[in-house]
Amino acid sequence: MADVTRKNMFHIPDGVIYLDGNSLGPLPKSVPEALGSVLQDEWGNLLIKGWNAAGWMEQPTRVGDTVGRLIGAAPGSVVMGDTLSIKVYQAVAAALKMRPGRKVILSDTGNFPTDLYMVEGLIRTLDQGYELRTVAPGDVTAAIDMDVAAVMLTEVDYRTGRMHDMGAVTRAAHDKGAVMIWDLAHSAGAIPVDLTAGGAEMAVGCTYKYLNGGPGAPAFIYVRPDLADTIDPALSGWLGHEQPFEFKLNYQPGAGIERMRVGTPPVLQMAALEFAMKAWEGVDMQDVRNASIALQEQFIAGVERAVPQLELVSPRNPARRGSQVSFRFEQGYAAMQALIHMDVIGDFRAPDIMRFGFTPLYLDAADVEIAVERIARVMHDRLWDDPKFKTRNRVT
Amino acid sequence: MADVTRKNMFHIPDGVIYLDGNSLGPLPKSVPEALGSVLQDEWGNLLIKGWNAAGWMEQPTRVGDTVGRLIGAAPGSVVMGDTLSIKVYQAVAAALKMRPGRKVILSDTGNFPTDLYMVEGLIRTLDQGYELRTVAPGDVTAAIDMDVAAVMLTEVDYRTGRMHDMGAVTRAAHDKGAVMIWDLAHSAGAIPVDLTAGGAEMAVGCTYKYLNGGPGAPAFIYVRPDLADTIDPALSGWLGHEQPFEFKLNYQPGAGIERMRVGTPPVLQMAALEFAMKAWEGVDMQDVRNASIALQEQFIAGVERAVPQLELVSPRNPARRGSQVSFRFEQGYAAMQALIHMDVIGDFRAPDIMRFGFTPLYLDAADVEIAVERIARVMHDRLWDDPKFKTRNRVT
Repeated sequence: MADVTRKNMFHIPDGVIYLDGNSLGPLPKSVPEALGSVLQDEWGNLLIKGWNAAGWMEQPTRVGDTVGRLIGAAPGSVVMGDTLSIKVYQAVAAALKMRPGRKVILSDTGNFPTDLYMVEGLIRTLDQGYELRTVAPGDVTAAIDMDVAAVMLTEVDYRTGRMHDMGAVTRAAHDKGAVMIWDLAHSAGAIPVDLTAGGAEMAVGCTYKYLNGGPGAPAFIYVRPDLADTIDPALSGWLGHEQPFEFKLNYQPGAGIERMRVGTPPVLQMAALEFAMKAWEGVDMQDVRNASIALQEQFIAGVERAVPQLELVSPRNPARRGSQVSFRFEQGYAAMQALIHMDVIGDFRAPDIMRFGFTPLYLDAADVEIAVERIARVMHDRLWDDPKFKTRNRVT
Repeated sequence: MADVTRKNMFHIPDGVIYLDGNSLGPLPKSVPEALGSVLQDEWGNLLIKGWNAAGWMEQPTRVGDTVGRLIGAAPGSVVMGDTLSIKVYQAVAAALKMRPGRKVILSDTGNFPTDLYMVEGLIRTLDQGYELRTVAPGDVTAAIDMDVAAVMLTEVDYRTGRMHDMGAVTRAAHDKGAVMIWDLAHSAGAIPVDLTAGGAEMAVGCTYKYLNGGPGAPAFIYVRPDLADTIDPALSGWLGHEQPFEFKLNYQPGAGIERMRVGTPPVLQMAALEFAMKAWEGVDMQDVRNASIALQEQFIAGVERAVPQLELVSPRNPARRGSQVSFRFEQGYAAMQALIHMDVIGDFRAPDIMRFGFTPLYLDAADVEIAVERIARVMHDRLWDDPKFKTRNRVT
């Protein structure tokens, strides 16, 4: 198995075992100096000329290609910008235009709430009888019928790590004439994805998790190349215009994926991501996947041996699990706080899920061993029963 | 007249006269170190805990209040996020819900194109017979009738600097029952704005121009406090939810301005803005306005004396002009390139406008004198006739 560990490229605070890279990836060590140079040499010295001279204008597609390589997207089919919520809206709005007459957007109850909220908002805004239908994750394929305009799913469940079978669901959607949209928030940089082979019309995702782009890093959107020149952009901003600097009064969409750009890109934020993406150079996602599964299997075996009362809620079959492992525990919030207090950082998802992310670029078997020991200590010593860990914070 | 110059707070490259702060403000000297500290001490060391411990979660409203002070908005009525294009969409979509039955969005031909493009996209998406009506800037008030759901204008024309009379137009809109939306892209930090007194329902703007937030700095949206709890957010993302971390399946808007938040905020990009906003502490916008007008009057008089063939396209009355001065010249593109080559940086807007921004925080009378001299040299020596300046770049 190829070793993908490159721990020396990341800043992990002394003594910390970080099992939350599925929520916010750690700081790549190169970023502070590199971003400092963008500030001083580009913004500071080039000023407005940075748009041309420093390549800011092309940053969204340039960085999009580096993300695209990890998700099996052809060069020129991914563009960065906005937030994942906005990209979901953009994708679903475009899908509805592609299937006039069909009134259902199908999703599942395991989807991340903002994806569902954005569709709700789109439906309220349209006010034309559209319906968001959500079914249990296992019932999605059977629920696709000829009323479904778009199937919109997150490949990996944010709570349990359960994975959809991207190929099978996409085929089922296409069999019924529906547009397929994948949210790859917990997939990009976590598991191998082959958008080209899968054939989905669109995909979206974020870059602050497994791609380590930093808090608030921009989202991405993929459009299948054969559709990119005909898709109707609901969010038709000037940087998606075919000639943004002609300042014409009417919108004319740009060629290909460019039309999915909206406003001015967050140059500084995206520069951090661009430098972070260097950690992926030469990395094969199948090697990452193999290493992740090995770490997860070690973790599950260790935790179940030491603390039988924790209930695994992630699929036991590693092939059906993303790059995280979740256990259910009624006092999960307090237990996670106690664990974080002991420098093992995972997170909690309501109502009772303790979630641990596995990121082989900066995590190894020795880390997992320590994490298991400390989880055992928290549980055996009932540290979750300590009142200081019981107060619920807003973000966990 | 109070002196508002604080040139030592900004990095202006040696010898450069920067008259393009209306496009991209310069780097505040404090930002590199401060942002480095956010990277290392917050992202690097706090990791996921930064959302609580470093106040990232409240950043959009905290920074919103610092922007709000400059535009006469009450604390808690402005929130940061996304791009100006997205904020325009959000505002207009909300306005249409407030005026069911009315089918016209009124704007003017002096509006910045992306504002018009975003409305076009919204109208295409809605597909319910809405109409974007654009009239000449001087005809707006007369064009407001009972079919108009929303009047959406940029206060200061991006090309000419012509200002709308915010109070009069807002009253005219309200007289006909229309919702008023102001784009303050060229107002915030440029001229005194009093949203509270003006009574407009919504306002939006960007922060990379006069507020010096850096390339791609986040936008802002203001909602009049009495409406904030009832407005319907079309872009209903999870951070606008009343309980984002309960991860409920259905959207329930948060209280007040919080509901205009959408996805995860661009923490790094917004941190740069937050530090940049310190340059405004203790600054009175009326003092900035007075200083700006003095610089502009000096500039116009100097240019017209030295180069009579340049045609002033900005209003001659300083009270009707924002914080920029524009001249029309057929060879404007090449002339501006020649001028930039001589370290006087303004910009060009198609088809023939040479645009100069005045930013008293880091610009003084001596700078204006040098700028006038060099403009005179470019014009007298016909440097615009030099072939090397004639190639059109994409961004100017």
